[in-house]
Amino acid sequence: MHLFYQPDPKLFELDEEEARHSYKVLRLGSGDIIHVTNGRGLLQKCILNVQGRKVGYEVVESVLMERRSFAVHIAVAPTRKAERNEWMVEKMTEIGVERIDFLITEHTNPETINRVVNLSRLNRIAASAMKQSQQYYLPVITVNNKYEPFIKSATEAVKLMAYVPDQNKVEHVFSKVKKDSSTSLLIGPEGDFSEKEVALALEYGFTTVSLGPTRLRTETAAVTGCHAINLAQII
Amino acid sequence: MHLFYQPDPKLFELDEEEARHSYKVLRLGSGDIIHVTNGRGLLQKCILNVQGRKVGYEVVESVLMERRSFAVHIAVAPTRKAERNEWMVEKMTEIGVERIDFLITEHTNPETINRVVNLSRLNRIAASAMKQSQQYYLPVITVNNKYEPFIKSATEAVKLMAYVPDQNKVEHVFSKVKKDSSTSLLIGPEGDFSEKEVALALEYGFTTVSLGPTRLRTETAAVTGCHAINLAQII
Repeated sequence: MHLFYQPDPKLFELDEEEARHSYKVLRLGSGDIIHVTNGRGLLQKCILNVQGRKVGYEVVESVLMERRSFAVHIAVAPTRKAERNEWMVEKMTEIGVERIDFLITEHTNPETINRVVNLSRLNRIAASAMKQSQQYYLPVITVNNKYEPFIKSATEAVKLMAYVPDQNKVEHVFSKVKKDSSTSLLIGPEGDFSEKEVALALEYGFTTVSLGPTRLRTETAAVTGCHAINLAQII
Repeated sequence: MHLFYQPDPKLFELDEEEARHSYKVLRLGSGDIIHVTNGRGLLQKCILNVQGRKVGYEVVESVLMERRSFAVHIAVAPTRKAERNEWMVEKMTEIGVERIDFLITEHTNPETINRVVNLSRLNRIAASAMKQSQQYYLPVITVNNKYEPFIKSATEAVKLMAYVPDQNKVEHVFSKVKKDSSTSLLIGPEGDFSEKEVALALEYGFTTVSLGPTRLRTETAAVTGCHAINLAQII
């Protein structure tokens, strides 16, 4: 199934990049069948109508796909390299994630944030990963979330924070997930969360969890944490 | 703990790159404590002796760390982009993997293999990830494994192949893992395994498994498959 992304279902036309992919890479033409999603659950089966560089389509079938019965929200401090943040977004989207919120934490270097987190680029990467993995809902991605207000306004059923102080045993994230509920998982920067940040999260109903026995880079923690939550929901 | 890699424990000296990292980045000098591993389980606590650009050390404590009670072996067709293969090796090493074998499958483009799989570069990336994640065993990485002999010589306790033919329900890799045993997981190329390849694997004791409900890129499948096996061993 060739899946394309068009956020505006009233246009009946692929945007320039999607259009070029359809005729240049996939060599599709008028009369061919494609599927189009708006990233908000709509899945449409369409017949192409190609006129030069304009790729229009006629919708022959339209379905609103249901959301999953659980939501995965990952809140993560950005890493210092743009490509690692991009990998993180791509991989979490492939695996399945409803929200990705970039957090500004005490140990996050504020000067790098705008340099390494380009929201429109991340949204394009997520759209690409959504199509690749044949999903129909785009994750919501937000940036520049100040830690304290973010913690205080968290409403998920299960609120978790990846944090393992020396010598303490904490449970693995996998064991804390409640089926068919929403889970929030906080991933700290390379320098970890500060004691003050941990205390605030605990005060507001977060539980600390482990992501496994090895020390993971921030982006690996986000992806494996996201994966562990997804696994716990489906196993 | 500052962990360095020196494969030859008889040298008592860091190689050029490790040396530069110690004095330039970490600003360590004579008298400072570092830890050194040989990637084969040896963990040594050492006192630095820096003379110009030569960073030697004296070993004050030496421990041979035990291997884990289970082994994770991932055999994967290389993706077409070098950086994705590198990302895959880095992430699997962080999470925990004993072997990574690159497979030549029917749908793998043979011309790209040497271009996108540089073994010495992959070994350097694995060594870096090993140190980063505070582990002491390097994964064994091999390339150019022809599919048929590889399948026929597989000796792991549990042999799995990520393959989900349309309409069939297969179990998730997580449910097939046996605690404290070795697991082999085969990950196919973007064009998937051929029917002939699947038949051969089944004939030689492999079981097909799912890696979850979404369609994953090869490198994402390898990393999440590796993670799922690790999780199943520790939960």
